[in-house]
Amino acid sequence: MEAEKIIGIVGGAGPFAGLDLQTKILNQTDATQDQEHLTIINLSQPNQLTDRTAFLLGETAVNPAQAIFQQLQLLERAGTAVAAIPCNTAHAPVIFDVVLAQLKAAGSRLTFLNMVYETAQYIHQHHPGIKRIGVLSTTGTYRVRIYPDLLETIGFEVLVPDEVVQKTAVQPAIYHPQHGIKACGKATPQSRNWLLQSIHHLQQQGAEAIILGCTELPLAITENRIETMQVIDPTTILARALIREANPAKLRPLL
Amino acid sequence: MEAEKIIGIVGGAGPFAGLDLQTKILNQTDATQDQEHLTIINLSQPNQLTDRTAFLLGETAVNPAQAIFQQLQLLERAGTAVAAIPCNTAHAPVIFDVVLAQLKAAGSRLTFLNMVYETAQYIHQHHPGIKRIGVLSTTGTYRVRIYPDLLETIGFEVLVPDEVVQKTAVQPAIYHPQHGIKACGKATPQSRNWLLQSIHHLQQQGAEAIILGCTELPLAITENRIETMQVIDPTTILARALIREANPAKLRPLL
Repeated sequence: MEAEKIIGIVGGAGPFAGLDLQTKILNQTDATQDQEHLTIINLSQPNQLTDRTAFLLGETAVNPAQAIFQQLQLLERAGTAVAAIPCNTAHAPVIFDVVLAQLKAAGSRLTFLNMVYETAQYIHQHHPGIKRIGVLSTTGTYRVRIYPDLLETIGFEVLVPDEVVQKTAVQPAIYHPQHGIKACGKATPQSRNWLLQSIHHLQQQGAEAIILGCTELPLAITENRIETMQVIDPTTILARALIREANPAKLRPLL
Repeated sequence: MEAEKIIGIVGGAGPFAGLDLQTKILNQTDATQDQEHLTIINLSQPNQLTDRTAFLLGETAVNPAQAIFQQLQLLERAGTAVAAIPCNTAHAPVIFDVVLAQLKAAGSRLTFLNMVYETAQYIHQHHPGIKRIGVLSTTGTYRVRIYPDLLETIGFEVLVPDEVVQKTAVQPAIYHPQHGIKACGKATPQSRNWLLQSIHHLQQQGAEAIILGCTELPLAITENRIETMQVIDPTTILARALIREANPAKLRPLL
C-alpha cells in the first residue's frame, strides 16, 4: 500500500475558511477514532496574504501569489505532499498560475489542487442534468469571471448577480466591517439575509444550482438545497479531493 | 515593538479538539479583517499520537510523549515560538514532564504552555470566591488526578464523579463508538445527556464550578453557567494564554 500523504492547507485566506476546510476534511473522512484521521498541516498566516480581491480590483499592486508560494514551500518542507488554498479568489489565473509557475521553477513535488476545477468536475459527474448555474462570489472573483470562464468552456450556462446586487448584497455579506462574515468569523442574520436575497435573484434568472463561490459563504449558507436549487459548496468538494489524493480508502461515501 | 510570535498547535489529540482550540484563538483575537489575525500552525497528526488514556491505564506501553515531542520539533522548525497541546490527559506528569525534559535536552527555545496550570491560574484570578470545583475528564485524567493534584495544592477542594458515573456516563460521552464525541466529531444528544447527568451528580456534592477537563467536552457543553455553577472551559483559557504569549495587544477583553 502506498503511504498516506500529508495534507497541507494554506489556511489564512481567510482564517475561518481555513478552519472550515479542515473541519470538512475531518467530517468527510471515514474514521471512528482519533488515530484513523489523516495528517493535516493547517498553516494560517493571514498577515502575509494580502487581500486577493483588492489585488484583482487594482487596489494594491502586491500579488498574493508570492505569499501563497512561500507558504506552500513551508508546508512542503514540513512533509506535505498535497495542498490547497480554500479561497476562490486566489484561483484567478493572474494569481493561481503564478503560484504554479513558481512551484515548477522551484522543483516542487507538491500536488496543488485547484478548487474551481474540482468543483466543475464534481458538478459534471454528480449533477449531469444541471445546465444553468448561478455563482455567488467576492467582487474580485466576479470581475475576473473565474467560474464563468471555466464552466462555460465545458458547456454550462453561468448566471451572476447584476452589479447592484453584487455591490449591495454579496460583497457586504463577506466584507462588511460590522455584519460581514470575515469580520464576525461566522454568519450573522444580516449577512445571511443578503445572501438569501442574492440567491433568490439568481433563481429568478433561471438558476438550477448555486455555487457558493467564496469560502466564507458556506459559513452562512449550510443547506444542500434552497427551494428548487442544488447548493454547491466548493469547500466540501475540495475537502473530498484532498482526501482522495491523500488516501482514497478513507473517503466517506457521498450522502 | 517585539515581533508577533507564531503559535503552534499539537492538534491531533483529538483532531476535533485541535480545531476547537484554533477556532477559540480566532474568536478571542481582536481582529476585524483577515490580515489582523495571528499566525497559527495547526499540526494534526493523530495517527502518531497513541491514545493518552490507554497509556495512563496501562493498556499500552507506548508513551505518547515521544510523538508530542517530535511534533513540537516540527512546529519549531516551521517557525513556532509558543505552542500547546489541547489534550488534558497529555498533561499527566508521566507524559508532559517527559516532553519538557526532551525539549530541554534538545535545546528547544519553544514556550510550551501547560493548559492545566493556566486553568488553575485563571480560576484563582477570575473566580476568587469559588472553593469547591467539580472536574469531568477521561478515565486516564481521572485516575492520575491531574486536576485534583494541582488544584488542591493551591487551596481548592476538588470533586470528581464516583467510579460508576465515571464509567457509565463521563467516559462513554467521550469514547463511545456510536454516541461518543470522538467518534462523531461533535456532541450527540446521548453524549450531552451523559455529561449533564454527571454535572448534576457533582452539583449534588456541592460543586460551585465545573471544569470541562477533557478538550472534547466543550464541544457538547457550550454554556458558561449551568444552574448555580460556573462552567470552566480550559480550551478557551488556553486559547487566551497563547494569544497573550504571541501578542498580548490582540487579546480580546473577557466578556
